[in-house]
Amino acid sequence: MNNIIIIGGSDAGISAALRIRELNSDVRPLIIDADRYPNFSICGLPYYISREVRDWRSLAHRTREDLVNEGLELLLEHTVKGIHPNTKQITAIDKTGASKELQYDKLLLTTGALSQKPDISGIDKSGVFFLRWLPDCLKIDEFIKESKPKTAVIIGAGYIGMEMTEALAKRGLQVTLVEYADTVLPSLDRELSEKLQATLAKNNVTVATQTSIESIELNNHRLLVKGTNQFERLADMVLISTGSIPNSHLGKSIGLDTGLKGALKVNCRMETQLSDIYAAGDCAETWHKVLNAYTYLPLGTVAHKQGRVAGENLLGGHKEFAGTMGTQSLKFFDNVITRTGLNEQEALRAGLTPISTDLETWDHKVYYLKAEKIHIRVTADRDSRRILGAQMIGAYGTEISKRIDLFSAAIYHELTVQEFSDYDLSYAPPLSSPWDPVQLAVQKLERKLG
Amino acid sequence: MNNIIIIGGSDAGISAALRIRELNSDVRPLIIDADRYPNFSICGLPYYISREVRDWRSLAHRTREDLVNEGLELLLEHTVKGIHPNTKQITAIDKTGASKELQYDKLLLTTGALSQKPDISGIDKSGVFFLRWLPDCLKIDEFIKESKPKTAVIIGAGYIGMEMTEALAKRGLQVTLVEYADTVLPSLDRELSEKLQATLAKNNVTVATQTSIESIELNNHRLLVKGTNQFERLADMVLISTGSIPNSHLGKSIGLDTGLKGALKVNCRMETQLSDIYAAGDCAETWHKVLNAYTYLPLGTVAHKQGRVAGENLLGGHKEFAGTMGTQSLKFFDNVITRTGLNEQEALRAGLTPISTDLETWDHKVYYLKAEKIHIRVTADRDSRRILGAQMIGAYGTEISKRIDLFSAAIYHELTVQEFSDYDLSYAPPLSSPWDPVQLAVQKLERKLG
Repeated sequence: MNNIIIIGGSDAGISAALRIRELNSDVRPLIIDADRYPNFSICGLPYYISREVRDWRSLAHRTREDLVNEGLELLLEHTVKGIHPNTKQITAIDKTGASKELQYDKLLLTTGALSQKPDISGIDKSGVFFLRWLPDCLKIDEFIKESKPKTAVIIGAGYIGMEMTEALAKRGLQVTLVEYADTVLPSLDRELSEKLQATLAKNNVTVATQTSIESIELNNHRLLVKGTNQFERLADMVLISTGSIPNSHLGKSIGLDTGLKGALKVNCRMETQLSDIYAAGDCAETWHKVLNAYTYLPLGTVAHKQGRVAGENLLGGHKEFAGTMGTQSLKFFDNVITRTGLNEQEALRAGLTPISTDLETWDHKVYYLKAEKIHIRVTADRDSRRILGAQMIGAYGTEISKRIDLFSAAIYHELTVQEFSDYDLSYAPPLSSPWDPVQLAVQKLERKLG
Repeated sequence: MNNIIIIGGSDAGISAALRIRELNSDVRPLIIDADRYPNFSICGLPYYISREVRDWRSLAHRTREDLVNEGLELLLEHTVKGIHPNTKQITAIDKTGASKELQYDKLLLTTGALSQKPDISGIDKSGVFFLRWLPDCLKIDEFIKESKPKTAVIIGAGYIGMEMTEALAKRGLQVTLVEYADTVLPSLDRELSEKLQATLAKNNVTVATQTSIESIELNNHRLLVKGTNQFERLADMVLISTGSIPNSHLGKSIGLDTGLKGALKVNCRMETQLSDIYAAGDCAETWHKVLNAYTYLPLGTVAHKQGRVAGENLLGGHKEFAGTMGTQSLKFFDNVITRTGLNEQEALRAGLTPISTDLETWDHKVYYLKAEKIHIRVTADRDSRRILGAQMIGAYGTEISKRIDLFSAAIYHELTVQEFSDYDLSYAPPLSSPWDPVQLAVQKLERKLG
């Protein structure tokens, strides 16, 4: 009854397997992974490129041995070629093509995501890279070491594009960052993303927004990147970071329903429409608690949560995924940029009546050493007075990544702007102010609401 | 109808007055303060002693001019000698003894707290200090500059005792810290307070616990401090930091009910039993949301919240103080120590069935630069599985002062250990892990609960 197979050994899969072991140590789930290295921190890859991480092996959340010691069964370097729901069997093949049939009682698909390949001619040229998995990362590192590129074009200024901008700049490259939207980090309102201009300039990063890349051509051993708005740049390497798409072909092959971007449809128990088959993580849709709708949001935090829920339910539990709040953080050079909930544009698109305010204040009492300015933007719904979202930018070390989490908790609990002042937040002069900056920002919004 | 008088110009009083101005700019509340300097950050005083703050004037939350610009009326250096509830008048006198009668519609008492004077013979000797208000602070600074003391005994190892230990050590004094309880910072469980031993030793601080000081004698121009357990120490100065008591004599003089330690009794709207007379801040009792009982907890954060509630109600509002969670933070040399909710001992005394666990983990992914170990202790109720409290210790910069606030929010919302994993907390490798350390700690406790 407890023959559990998990296809995929990254965040969601491992999280599910560990949860299973926590709840029932008699069950040993089998993880099948196409890679040699399961449970890698793919969020850490830019820091290997930047040389802030010296050994890629240290990027493993857990080593293979750790996983075996936790009681997991591993079948690595095997690819699942077929699922047979009627007989509850799967077919896996190894690198030599040898195949084996495996029997399951419950199956979890955590097949993850793939880099989106935008429609750009010349995208397969040598010197054009993607960053999703460890091998991508090692290829980029190898290229930098061997070809000693001096200039790079990065296409897409989302989280990975920003982190890779910093990483390549730290490796000495002159980076041009290209974004289709009208600001970098378009998941933030303009009030925040504009704050990064000084940092981009200071680090010698050229930015081209409202620009869509159309072609990459070979030009005298270099790459000529062309796009709309007369964009034309010669570069020694190109990184494409225009987002991810779900790796859902295995699920589709057995007729599983798909939704946004082709992600597998699941309910809040991470069940697909086929009995005893679950899906979690980047291959599946995600319930967004504030939007009150499904979305596609391939994040490690979400994958861990969905995996944990799936693990409990694979053992017959009834756990429900509470939903994402869209919480994200990014370190970019000396800054931290964070967000949770909905920004003003997202709230408008969701048919809400958002009202926002911006507050620039000190992270702790300014009379104490090393106080730093932080910028807080809060959005609430004018009608319900509920807090909908928050965005922050400030120096690394100003605790804004956990300050955004206070907003995440408050929005989770559907707090109004008035109620937010009831939170009893800690204060000592080197750490905060008697009203924490997040409360000062919400009080400012409360005054604006009247 | 809107003749509002506030007696006391510190956190609660100013907070009430500012809230009144926010809600109705036609009302100009009058603040009467015995001091020349209203709205001082008394939490900042140790940093003036330590020389981390160079100018005591910078310790003002707002200057006198700021307050006038906010529309507040100020009557400084005036002491209220009598309140006449029948005629709704008060009598205030200035330094010369000249008195004036003032009429109120609504009255708010925010008379604050006083240093507790323990029963020690010789407590009034020259060289023995308390620290509560700015003049206390200036006296200590003056003494250090003129008398150049080399050794100090600090009696009481609570928050102020700890901050002053650091401050005096930074001024070059050899400090002996004496505590009646069996550990320093007795508001923490032993598992946490013991973690400070290395820091105390490294900074050459001698600690005597389970020691009650009985006398201070003059001995050859120095102070001989004697106590239980054969404690005997010669020192050049003594600081007494054994806590605060409410300054409630004015309220008592008109028959207001008092409770714990003589603090004024108030309901959740900050009303005393006399109509149109309110009290808030350190002179009043505080509702504790987790204990579900009144307590005495003189903290700036609580005073600000109670003041804000009182301000709204002085204008005829119906706002209720939601209660304190007992959230506190402290920077001590390079460490931050934080707590919220109930510790295990407090939970036991409250008749609950606490169960705790300790987790030592990294503040962010260890593969990224400058990861630091943090220690998290979480307590839950075995029967209800609700989180009751948390305590943390870690290096300054590890975001634990805002991590404790996540527990404060969760306990405020009466979350169980299981539900805490539903919080969508931010993650990037330089800032956290895919499950934030606070969630890892609660998951460990969940396993222990079974």
